[in-house]
Amino acid sequence: MTPAELQRRLAGLLVVRASGHGRDEQRRYPRWELCNHELERLLKAGVGGVILLGGSAEELRLRTAQLQAWAGQPLLLCADVEEGVGQRFEGASWLVPPMAIGRLHGRDPIRAEQLAERYGRCTGRQARLLGLNWVLAPVCDVNNNPANPVINVRAWGDTAATAASLSAAFVRGCQSEGVLACAKHFPGHGDTSSDSHLELPLIPHSRQRLEAVELPPFQAAIAADVAAVMTAHLQLPAIDPQRPATLSTAVLTDLLRRDLGFGGLVVTDALVMEAISAHHGAEEAAVLAFEAGADVLLMPDDADQALAALHEAVRSGRIRKQRVQESLERRRQALQRCLQRPAGDALVLEQDLAALVRSKDHQLSETLLQLSLDQQGPPLAPGAAGINLIRLDNQLNAPQLPTMAPALLRPAMQGYRAVVIDGRSPSPWSGDPEVPLALDRLGDGPVLLQLLVRGNPFRGSAGADEPWPQVVQQLLKAERLAGLAVYGSPYLWEQLRQQLPPEIPAAYSPAQMPQAQACLLARLGWTSAPQEGGFTD
Amino acid sequence: MTPAELQRRLAGLLVVRASGHGRDEQRRYPRWELCNHELERLLKAGVGGVILLGGSAEELRLRTAQLQAWAGQPLLLCADVEEGVGQRFEGASWLVPPMAIGRLHGRDPIRAEQLAERYGRCTGRQARLLGLNWVLAPVCDVNNNPANPVINVRAWGDTAATAASLSAAFVRGCQSEGVLACAKHFPGHGDTSSDSHLELPLIPHSRQRLEAVELPPFQAAIAADVAAVMTAHLQLPAIDPQRPATLSTAVLTDLLRRDLGFGGLVVTDALVMEAISAHHGAEEAAVLAFEAGADVLLMPDDADQALAALHEAVRSGRIRKQRVQESLERRRQALQRCLQRPAGDALVLEQDLAALVRSKDHQLSETLLQLSLDQQGPPLAPGAAGINLIRLDNQLNAPQLPTMAPALLRPAMQGYRAVVIDGRSPSPWSGDPEVPLALDRLGDGPVLLQLLVRGNPFRGSAGADEPWPQVVQQLLKAERLAGLAVYGSPYLWEQLRQQLPPEIPAAYSPAQMPQAQACLLARLGWTSAPQEGGFTD
Repeated sequence: MTPAELQRRLAGLLVVRASGHGRDEQRRYPRWELCNHELERLLKAGVGGVILLGGSAEELRLRTAQLQAWAGQPLLLCADVEEGVGQRFEGASWLVPPMAIGRLHGRDPIRAEQLAERYGRCTGRQARLLGLNWVLAPVCDVNNNPANPVINVRAWGDTAATAASLSAAFVRGCQSEGVLACAKHFPGHGDTSSDSHLELPLIPHSRQRLEAVELPPFQAAIAADVAAVMTAHLQLPAIDPQRPATLSTAVLTDLLRRDLGFGGLVVTDALVMEAISAHHGAEEAAVLAFEAGADVLLMPDDADQALAALHEAVRSGRIRKQRVQESLERRRQALQRCLQRPAGDALVLEQDLAALVRSKDHQLSETLLQLSLDQQGPPLAPGAAGINLIRLDNQLNAPQLPTMAPALLRPAMQGYRAVVIDGRSPSPWSGDPEVPLALDRLGDGPVLLQLLVRGNPFRGSAGADEPWPQVVQQLLKAERLAGLAVYGSPYLWEQLRQQLPPEIPAAYSPAQMPQAQACLLARLGWTSAPQEGGFTD
Repeated sequence: MTPAELQRRLAGLLVVRASGHGRDEQRRYPRWELCNHELERLLKAGVGGVILLGGSAEELRLRTAQLQAWAGQPLLLCADVEEGVGQRFEGASWLVPPMAIGRLHGRDPIRAEQLAERYGRCTGRQARLLGLNWVLAPVCDVNNNPANPVINVRAWGDTAATAASLSAAFVRGCQSEGVLACAKHFPGHGDTSSDSHLELPLIPHSRQRLEAVELPPFQAAIAADVAAVMTAHLQLPAIDPQRPATLSTAVLTDLLRRDLGFGGLVVTDALVMEAISAHHGAEEAAVLAFEAGADVLLMPDDADQALAALHEAVRSGRIRKQRVQESLERRRQALQRCLQRPAGDALVLEQDLAALVRSKDHQLSETLLQLSLDQQGPPLAPGAAGINLIRLDNQLNAPQLPTMAPALLRPAMQGYRAVVIDGRSPSPWSGDPEVPLALDRLGDGPVLLQLLVRGNPFRGSAGADEPWPQVVQQLLKAERLAGLAVYGSPYLWEQLRQQLPPEIPAAYSPAQMPQAQACLLARLGWTSAPQEGGFTD
């Protein structure tokens, strides 16, 4: 093999990041998303995969065709579509967070498993139709720590048994559509209260405890023949006192490959994340991860540097050529699996993609929303000149609260004026912990409290750090609480619902998107506003 | 002609509204945007045009092909892309508001005309590449009333001469690309302080005054061979004491056709707007507009009812068949003009649309931004733990303030914390007119005041109704004004800049989009933040 050939083969093991939008100036995160010039150059140099984020389904369809055309070889094209393809690409199905099905699992495990499998099928099929061949899901982490800021409702359960059963079902569904799934974040990211996007979390548990709680969902996914496993950026002193899981031979080779018998593709979580990049340069992180047992390296800080370092490591004998061949062979076998897709469901680019979301997909979305709703108390009272107080915890362009969102329109129809609090609002707080809400800044009348709060990466908390229990007490005492809606965190909901007297209307949905708002408010008796249309009451 | 044939021909005179998005559940305004089932039915029944709003350039390209495939005839496909195609469809060029060039016209009329023509060419070409054949611009209204809530910076000038010269240049540029332009809103919507989206404004002027101020831009556009003229929903008692312009024979037939000699297509403004629909039903509004002299009816409240009413009016003899033929012939001639497009610039659907925005389009955007910037005082001081106070006046999903907007990121890099006030924030006002801003709710440190304020339809005011002059005084007195940026209203800028002592950094851009923010803040000395990329400093 010539050095140029070796370089090209090693490039096949890198996955770089691109926007789903077609033009450079449309990139939302240009710091992380390569420009087209660079993308084309790297793909022509043999880079083997792209992770995509952003844009509509139509844009993604054009984009994947473009990337595939630039590359001379079949690419791994992946995305973090854990909650349906519509979570990241506008227009595809956006489903409830997995934890919604996890909550159902306790009372109806068979139904929950069936739904998780349909969830996987829906996601896999739409991913495939849009040109993706690799879904970076399911999250196999057991969310047994309610303060987890980064996993939270992304997990399929808060017990090992539930997470195992449902993530395996997701894998079966997704892969039956000829799209690879990816169990993450190995060996388990559920029991942390810090965010690896920002720092390196530590899991203090023994091997025995890992075997009881963290590992079973991964074992179940492996038993379901999951094509790939993604590593976690976590410190696990009981397994490896030195290196984080992503860079640890003890974790990737000894535990995952040898003890759990996983023969598929091992991919790192994004190497650019602070947990890794704050401690290791782009070059060393890539070499260490590969040495530890990873086959594919996701989002190295600098693809050229990572590639040069890998090349040098092979040249110097630090990495064996045979090891490179093994990883390339695993990549080839994974791509081979994608070719076994069901026939008769192809989507031509010229078509309008109307066939992307089928009525059975709509039914699945709706069924999941209905099944995961909690409700207590009477319906909401009609018509009042009051305040629709919304807390929105996610600032990333807030796709859950468009202008025509039911959470805005339905209360408006009833006479409620919207006040939205997000991370950039003037403060709504009085400074007095007993009566924390500055009611004089909001206006008079009853208050409908709608909290769109869940754990979100990059926030550093699970959203439970604001005094909502005290606000509920304050509004109850002032006799101004018209109703409560919680979208997202089951932990916040459990905390607040217990405070409510039976005459207060209240409901909870694990999901936040407009369809979830329509569903929840309808359950409380407020049906469709004329402008919104489309949403089932 | 059989009744069915007549019905089909009459349908050709209707333009209905659709979302640029492909799937029903993606519609942002389902109250006004027809669902696909209805669209397909109406187009197959002969409806002759569609006005589109929303979605990305990619989605629009697929959408126009789909609509054209449903219709058995060439369609009029139009959009309100007054400020470049990117104003409505993400990814295309989004240019400064026309008034920016109007402001330049006084000191460099030749340059201003050249830029207006390039503006028209850029808009026409991108519209054509995405499948549109009719740009609903230029606004020919003379914005001589700073309190105008609906025209404002959409106008090409605040004098008749400027508006005439520049809107004619836009027409030439746009139509040279084989795309029809549309002079609006006849006979002039500039001198109103109310919004016809909400009510019927009154223009109290004499015919003589109209000839001096309102009509010259329309005459110039007609002289430039503009293909279409759109009517205004305005009361003009001097011309027609009974009917609003859209429904007035005196305005459309006597003034526009006879006196101004316009032989092209007359299209109504949206008949669904309150100014018309509050006074006339869908049926009568359509018949009255057609009787008055309109050829094409935009957005009737109910297309089937409008069509049935037109049919009945022809059957009963209220409308002559000959008159229907004339309008159809004008429509045919307009479509004929679109076929004379420049060759060698076609865009195939399979392509990635990378060719949509050329480097000369980027240059045009940038030149317009640079030329229209005002600045006074020194550069902004570096680094301070202060407040980046942003007033955002447009709630419609605020495309001007994405998460990565320079107006957010650059001050953040300097240590400023963002506080964004929009129509849904907790109140930032103290209630004291002397010191209106409740500074205690914002936090300590210097305040960078950024006002994204311009006239916007549906708001009911030009955005000058908040006490910003008093806020500037308050911050000056407290020695906390770090700087001022105004994006949008030149009137607000003129009012505030005069209050500022020379040591306060301040700047103005007529445009609000992220690129304008990058340009303005760079002029004040704050250059690119690493995350934003892409924007020229």
